[in-house]
Amino acid sequence: MKIKIANHSGFCYGVRRAIDLAIKNSSEQKTYSYGDIIHNEDEINRLKSYNIEPVYDIANMEQNAKVVIRSHGEPRKTYEKLKEQNATIVDATCPYVKRIHSLIEEYSSNGFTIFLIGNKDHPEVTASIGWSRSDIFVFGDPDELLSFDKELDNVLVLSQTTIKESLWDSCAEIIGKKYKNVVFINTICSATSLRQNSTRALAAEVDAMLIIGGKKSSNTKKLYEISYSINKNTFFYENKDEIIVQKFKIYDIIGISAGASTPKWVVDELVEKLLNESEE
Amino acid sequence: MKIKIANHSGFCYGVRRAIDLAIKNSSEQKTYSYGDIIHNEDEINRLKSYNIEPVYDIANMEQNAKVVIRSHGEPRKTYEKLKEQNATIVDATCPYVKRIHSLIEEYSSNGFTIFLIGNKDHPEVTASIGWSRSDIFVFGDPDELLSFDKELDNVLVLSQTTIKESLWDSCAEIIGKKYKNVVFINTICSATSLRQNSTRALAAEVDAMLIIGGKKSSNTKKLYEISYSINKNTFFYENKDEIIVQKFKIYDIIGISAGASTPKWVVDELVEKLLNESEE
Repeated sequence: MKIKIANHSGFCYGVRRAIDLAIKNSSEQKTYSYGDIIHNEDEINRLKSYNIEPVYDIANMEQNAKVVIRSHGEPRKTYEKLKEQNATIVDATCPYVKRIHSLIEEYSSNGFTIFLIGNKDHPEVTASIGWSRSDIFVFGDPDELLSFDKELDNVLVLSQTTIKESLWDSCAEIIGKKYKNVVFINTICSATSLRQNSTRALAAEVDAMLIIGGKKSSNTKKLYEISYSINKNTFFYENKDEIIVQKFKIYDIIGISAGASTPKWVVDELVEKLLNESEE
Repeated sequence: MKIKIANHSGFCYGVRRAIDLAIKNSSEQKTYSYGDIIHNEDEINRLKSYNIEPVYDIANMEQNAKVVIRSHGEPRKTYEKLKEQNATIVDATCPYVKRIHSLIEEYSSNGFTIFLIGNKDHPEVTASIGWSRSDIFVFGDPDELLSFDKELDNVLVLSQTTIKESLWDSCAEIIGKKYKNVVFINTICSATSLRQNSTRALAAEVDAMLIIGGKKSSNTKKLYEISYSINKNTFFYENKDEIIVQKFKIYDIIGISAGASTPKWVVDELVEKLLNESEE
């Protein structure tokens, strides 16, 4: 049996790094993650074995606690509040999000108004807003921009990391027509499109595809749909317990892709089971 | 004047992180980088102001020195030698390369033979080879694979991060035909193709393109060629000193992309000059 694992499968870099940092900084003393570090129950339970537990309100944390800022990032005032509590901060903000914070801080200090294309209610956007030193406006769709009529001198336009390129393009077009001095820096992260594209490419070249991830994970479902549209031998499993290896012995090459919230160890266990039992 | 900066322009994540780590760990005491941390003279000079200097032979370093492992990574034995010298190691190995080291170590310890598709002489490959616990073979092209006739049970196939997808595909095809139990994990990093694709996309939508980078940098030259093939108003500058802003006042929207070895501050200075002088 040959197994091909899709490039850009599983956790994006920012999430993997956040979990690695949390574990690396864990100890016998409890470590808090401020908010959920990942939307995967198995992984949250695994982290509990390292004394890492989520907290949703800083007020519920004791003084001098250790706390991980998750990959989404936090506004500047969260850091200030944590410092008031004498917390030890492990900053696991995704480096691509951190770059947005730096750009906002730098340009807003230099007389620019900031436009952020994204979803006002998304925690990443809430965090980014909190780094501006002057006016910052969030636009979730082109219509909101059309009805916006403030006169402005210098504008910096950035994006939430997870929006679609088409939304960026349509918003940038309107802004370009409305304003004279504008710097556009597309800060979309490619993790989602890379994951989908490599699943698509792999599905086309293998005999069967296994999509690994939570049944409720919408991005994993999307991977399943993409794969199934290309390769009808596509199967969706949550973990190794659900797979019957016997069924796959008829295939020569099996492709594997995993959702953004699927831990690597879940995939590793499944690959091991496939290889071991296909030998029998 | 409107300025659009290409997504995925400039340093790849691994190089940016290596430089950030070097600076963060610098002090009055000298910090060594083992080998050149970046192929850009202006940036190497800037790093010297932080007491960061390259060293090419561990024997030339005093005991207890501080040393940065650059993004390419190093074989296990380099770490051992540095520890013998009581060096403080700042490990700036690119996380995508580190993942290759972990996979090689894990699978080679579990009875797999490792195949690495890449260039034997590249420092990244030399480093990766040094993490294997059993046999590892490097293949630079499909012909080398065709003439390889060792019988093997379990094979793990990985790639150098910077090879082309087409090389991976042609090698994977041959390996799939020759061996029965194979795990393929495509570990190509997308930085190069993303940089080229976003330059291509931006060149198509702006009035003029500026490509920023060293005149000797082959990847910057490649960006210039890509951009020029789409937009004849493409210009190549090393830094802000070369640009005459007057010439660009006729354009409404200017796109900017930078090579993999071009520091962000070089681009920032150029954007500032463009915006300031176009107002005059």
